[in-house]
This record gives sequence, structure tokens and C-alpha cells, in this order.
Amino acid sequence: MAIVAEQPSTSATHSFGPAVALSCRECGERYELGPRFACDFCFGPLEVAYSFGTVTRASIEQGPNNIWRYAALLPVPANVRDLPNMNPGMTPLVRADRLAAELGLRSLHVKDDSGNPTHSFKDRVVAIAVEAARTFGFTTLSCSSTGNLAGAVGAAAARAGFKSCVFIPAGLEEAKVVMAAVYGGRLVAIDGNYDDTNRFCSELIGDDAGQDWGFVNVNLRPYYGEGSKTLAYEIAEQLGWRLPAQIIIPIASGSQLTKIDKGFQELIALGLVEDTPYKIFGAQATGCSPVAKAWENGHDVIQPVKPDTIAKSLAIGNPADGPYVLDICKRTGGAVAHVDDTEIVDAIRLLARTEGVFAETAGGVTTGVLRKLLADGLLDPDAETVVLNTGDGLKTLNAVQGAGVTATIKPSLDAFRAAGLA
Amino acid sequence: MAIVAEQPSTSATHSFGPAVALSCRECGERYELGPRFACDFCFGPLEVAYSFGTVTRASIEQGPNNIWRYAALLPVPANVRDLPNMNPGMTPLVRADRLAAELGLRSLHVKDDSGNPTHSFKDRVVAIAVEAARTFGFTTLSCSSTGNLAGAVGAAAARAGFKSCVFIPAGLEEAKVVMAAVYGGRLVAIDGNYDDTNRFCSELIGDDAGQDWGFVNVNLRPYYGEGSKTLAYEIAEQLGWRLPAQIIIPIASGSQLTKIDKGFQELIALGLVEDTPYKIFGAQATGCSPVAKAWENGHDVIQPVKPDTIAKSLAIGNPADGPYVLDICKRTGGAVAHVDDTEIVDAIRLLARTEGVFAETAGGVTTGVLRKLLADGLLDPDAETVVLNTGDGLKTLNAVQGAGVTATIKPSLDAFRAAGLA
Repeated sequence: MAIVAEQPSTSATHSFGPAVALSCRECGERYELGPRFACDFCFGPLEVAYSFGTVTRASIEQGPNNIWRYAALLPVPANVRDLPNMNPGMTPLVRADRLAAELGLRSLHVKDDSGNPTHSFKDRVVAIAVEAARTFGFTTLSCSSTGNLAGAVGAAAARAGFKSCVFIPAGLEEAKVVMAAVYGGRLVAIDGNYDDTNRFCSELIGDDAGQDWGFVNVNLRPYYGEGSKTLAYEIAEQLGWRLPAQIIIPIASGSQLTKIDKGFQELIALGLVEDTPYKIFGAQATGCSPVAKAWENGHDVIQPVKPDTIAKSLAIGNPADGPYVLDICKRTGGAVAHVDDTEIVDAIRLLARTEGVFAETAGGVTTGVLRKLLADGLLDPDAETVVLNTGDGLKTLNAVQGAGVTATIKPSLDAFRAAGLA
Repeated sequence: MAIVAEQPSTSATHSFGPAVALSCRECGERYELGPRFACDFCFGPLEVAYSFGTVTRASIEQGPNNIWRYAALLPVPANVRDLPNMNPGMTPLVRADRLAAELGLRSLHVKDDSGNPTHSFKDRVVAIAVEAARTFGFTTLSCSSTGNLAGAVGAAAARAGFKSCVFIPAGLEEAKVVMAAVYGGRLVAIDGNYDDTNRFCSELIGDDAGQDWGFVNVNLRPYYGEGSKTLAYEIAEQLGWRLPAQIIIPIASGSQLTKIDKGFQELIALGLVEDTPYKIFGAQATGCSPVAKAWENGHDVIQPVKPDTIAKSLAIGNPADGPYVLDICKRTGGAVAHVDDTEIVDAIRLLARTEGVFAETAGGVTTGVLRKLLADGLLDPDAETVVLNTGDGLKTLNAVQGAGVTATIKPSLDAFRAAGLA
């Protein structure tokens, strides 16, 4: 855990708020806050270390109705709420009584992140990266993306006045391509999968062409990743300042899951919630389930795979944070499970039919895994449970292609009756 | 204005909160609160009459972060926040400095209602209709819809445990059809346009087949319409309890515009905002501009048209509230204007490029009309202005079909350079 007991190096108006350093997750080596992401000594990932001031429930509740209510827990300037930013967050925590009843759960909530500005949780991470990019003086925002991030970066760049150049694997869903392109930045498709795209971005970052570019999920990754902590903060606050007993989180790179754990730990350390046990469950699509496979086999290392699933937003075959995910799920008493494409589509429809939430395929993965874990006896049906929907069904329409009109009729009561609709 | 000075007929736990009656907008005849929508005497539309209790800024600000913070101003039960409902509202009021600079405006905000649960303002009106349907004991929710309403009704019915049967004109955008169908209710396409669909629903309501059905925009219309008032409340609250000097609102049936005016008037009457002048401007697509045409020609009556525009959510050729819209725009010193399909698409791209807001075609209409009114000298560039985006670009992807990848390349720096991207 990166809560450190030292003083911030500069005044309260420091551009990174309570953040004091970058520290290596593996060897603990510390670095000045800057656009770097890997340890010079052990190549471990860097993350943000903080020296938090006094943060109370009341101080948070008086904040704006978006992630900036947690500005005192994030690497952002104190005046962040006044800067041009997409201001995501405080998405609904839906009390899912009808879905709970259907599954035989006592208490279930859906954290529905489709309510964010570009309708995925990626707006959270990008919002933090934008502030870092501003501080570092980058002029172009960039990323490698499975689709949702592309839209989030395009929109945020437009709002904040950056140029943008976004890289996606060829063959993404039309809605994600259009949404990434409509903001007017450059959108480059890579002839390959996400892992190829990501590798290319790492090359570009060392090249002259990538000078002055902030790659939100590469050289800005330590800041970017912190955005996912806000999911933990919001869930706890929306539950009435309590931790859920069980939470199901999708795994792409695995970063989100590790940051939600970090967020819960920070809330406990700061005395904002009681230190009650929580179990974290990771969810993958069978067609891209390297972490779930490692879990099943009791391995500590992740064997990369070539993704083949409709859950394209989770299609990262070589998930950087996979080992940390295994640790966290083990430590908290959770598990990692996977569902196939048919189960994903069924789960999308189940969630829509019972709760009026139209989830992206990633939401089908988590809801499907929720159902599977219950069936397998790995979830306690009496414990308070939260399941994440991180994206929007409108972006993965093909998944529910069968959903269409019941009938087409002439505008008359006779036609209505003849079609058997009366 | 329907602020009446009488006492509520029942206690504070009355199912309709501060609402005391329905009253005819034309002749003032009053009716008990019930599932009725037209005056028995003059056939005028009925609207909700209230007896408001004490409502303060503080009492509102202590409420939940959705439209139920205004429950004391709506025909809903006091405990509405605890009932299963989509809980829309409190969508972002985006400070649009970059768009303002590009257009030469001093102060501009975009009220971005794509942040609602099904990504259009329709969630607001349906949320109120659902509560009325619950009180009246209806078992099926229904509507005629140009698309957005269909999704909002489908989702709300699922959340609240109603059956649903929704009617749309054939030929709607794919995203709207899928979104309406995915919640598992019945979705019936009518071989005709929206006005045909609407007429058919009016027939059905008198038929046995429509018994126990709450048509949100027919027999529940007086309640439904009140949901649009929350746009006025939110804009004023989000501006710091002030009315904007100028506001641009899309016109479909015209109901939304009339209710925003009603909302502003209520805030003034209740002393929640200062009584400062505001001008209301109506926006239509040239291909369906009966109200704008009447305005141009100085007519009081609306000549129905056959719609032909990409702005399908505004494609109501015979807008029921057209005459009231003309009155309000005249009274407040506003105007009604229209833009053609090319201008709509340009405006969608302009809004996306400058503010990262991806609007539906209806948002292209309002943004396009904003630009046109400025060019024509009908808007004061120094006055505080708000423009509405009532829907989501993901639902009208075809409008920006040209938006796609800049280039597709192999994952190498050489390919990047060869494509002229460096």
C-alpha cells in the first residue's frame, strides 16, 4: 500500500495535490513525480505514493457531484474542479432487488458506470491522466485502446484543448470507432490485436514522433490508474460509508481490480469506513481468460493468450496486472472465474430485463460470473454484493443482435389483433 | 400557471405529493387526479395543478442527486426516492468555453442530458409517469415513440416491474430499436410515421386491449410532462440559483419547451431564484419545422407537415403544444428557428470537437440553431446562454457516418511514418 507518512514536498497548491512521489510496486524505489511508468532498477510498475491530509466524510460530501469530491485522495491539483475536464463519476449504484430475487441473493447493487460522459469507466482514469498531461506540458493525448478508452481520450482532449492521436486494433465495434473519431482527433487502426497495438505505442513513446505526447495508459499510467480508485470510494460512500462484503470486477489489464482494492484499503486507513472483510472476485470472458486459467491451475504467473471473445473491451491477452489480481483475490478470499460468449449475452439480457440496465459485453461478463459463482457456491447469497457494469450496451449492439421488434403492423386495431398482440 | 393557492386534498403522504388536481390549460376546468389527459368540455390538454409547501434551496440541496431532489415540486409520493425507478437527472451542465470562443459568445453552457440512464431526457418524463402508473394500478407501460422514449419506457418498466408494450414508427435507427427491445418488453413497429403511431395509440387506449395500460404520453401525459420541469430546476440550480438569459430548446411536440418555462416560473414564484428576464428559443429541423414556419409567417396555428429529416427524435409533424410554444417564445422575447440536415451534422461535429459532447441529431439541431441565431443577430452574444442536448450520439451514428479511422497501419514506426502520421 502506497500510503506514506511523509510530508508533501511542496505547498498545498502542488499540482499533484496529496501525491508525493512515484514508487515501484516491486522494489519500493521512489522517484519524483514525472511522466515515467517503470522502475529503472527492476522494471516494476510505478504507482503514486501519497501523504494524505485530513479527509473526512463531511469534507467529501461537500464536494462536487463527480470524482473531484475525492480530489484530496488523488494526484490532482486542489482547484481541479475549475479546470476543463469531463468530470466523470458519481454514477448510479443501482439497488438491484429484482435481479437479486431472480438469482437468490439477499442484497445486490449494480455499480453502473455507463452513466459516465462517454459511457464507460474509462472517463475516470482519463480525467486524472488529463491533469497530469496538463502539468507536464504535453500537447497531444494518446493511448492504445480496445475501444472505450479511445472515446474517452478523444472527448477529454476536445474538452481540455489537447490534440489527440488514438490507436485501436482494427475490427472494433462501429459505435466505438465512430465515438472515437467524432471528436476530431486522429484515430489510427493497427493491423493486429490490442497487445500488438500496445507494443507499438511503447515503441512510439521512445521515438521523436512521440515527443510531447502523453500516452494516458503508458507514460501517464501511474496517474491514470488512480482514477479507478474512485469506483471504490463511490461504492463505499453510496452504500452509506460501508464496504461491500463481495464485489465482482471485470479483468482486462487487471489494473481496475487492483485499484479498487487500493481504494478500499485507503478508506480503511483513513478511518472513513470500518475495517470489515471484503472478497474481490475477478471476471473474464472464456475467450480471453489468462488470469482465470492461472487461478484455476494455481499458478502465480500468467500465460498470455490470443483473445477470441465478443467482450472486446476485456480482450487483453497479456494482462500487465494479472499477478497482482491473483494476489488480491487470494488475500481477500475471492476468486477469478470466466463465462463464455453465450453466457455473456444471456447475462446482458438478464440485467436489462430485471433492472433496466443495458450493459456492454463487459457487464455481461461480470453479471454472468456473478451467476456462475453463485451456482458454484463461491458467493455467499446472504452477503452484501456489488457487481460492476463498466460500459454501455449501445457500444456493443451486435452482442444482442437478436433484439428487435416483436411485430410490424399497420396502424389499426384490426392489425393489432391479427398479429396476436391484443 | 398552475400554482394554486389551495390546500392539498389529503395528507403529506398523498401519492401525488404537492399535486392537488388536473386543470385544463384552455378553460381552467378542474378534475380529480386520475389517468385522464383531455378536458371533457373543451378538449384542451390537462395539466397538473399544485399547492406547494415550503421549498427552500437548502431543502432541495439536501435531496438525492437526481430529479427526486425536486420531489416537493412534482406529482410524486414523498417516499419516491425509495421506490424502484430509473432515478434520472442531475446531468452535467457543461461550461462550454471552447465552443463559446468559437462562436463569439461570452458565456455558454450545454445542458447534456445524454447522461441520463438511457441517455436521453425521456428518462425524466418516464420517471414521473411510472409513479403515476403505479398509483393507478396499471400493469403495462406503453407509449408511442420516435425512439428515445421507447428505450426509456422499456428500461423503466423493467426496473419497476411492469410489463411493457411500446410502439414506434418503422425505420428507426438500429441503436434505438435494439435499446427499446433489449429490456424484454414487446416492441411493435407501425407501418407509418410517428403521427400515425400516435393516432393508433389513442385508438388503442379506448379499446379493451388497452385496459390496464398506462400510455406514458397519452393517458399519463399530464404527469409525464411534468418531468421536463426538472430540466429548468437543474439548470437554475447548477448556475448557482439563477435563470439563464437565453436558452435554446428543441421542439418535437413542444411539451418540453412549455414545461421548462413552467419550471422557471415556479422557481420565481417560490422565491428560489430572482425574477430576471429570460428568452426562450425553439429549435427545429428544417425537414420538420411546422412551428418555425408558423413563427416565420406570424401565424398562431400550426400547419402539420410530413417529416423528412435525420433528426428523427424531433420528427413530429403535428406538434400538440406548438401554439403554446409560439406564445412562450413571443412572451419571453425569443424566437423559433430551424436548421437543415447538413447544418445539423456540422453542429454535432462542432460540439464534439470543441467540448467532447457527442450529441444526438436533436443536439445538432439546438447547437445549429444557436449558431444561426447568433449569425442572424437574434441572440445577444454577451448574455448568459444555455443550449440543450437532449440525447446521445451513439443512438444516431448514421448522422456522422463519415467519422472513422484516419489510417490503418501495421504496428511499426516505419508504417507510422509512411502513412504520414509522424
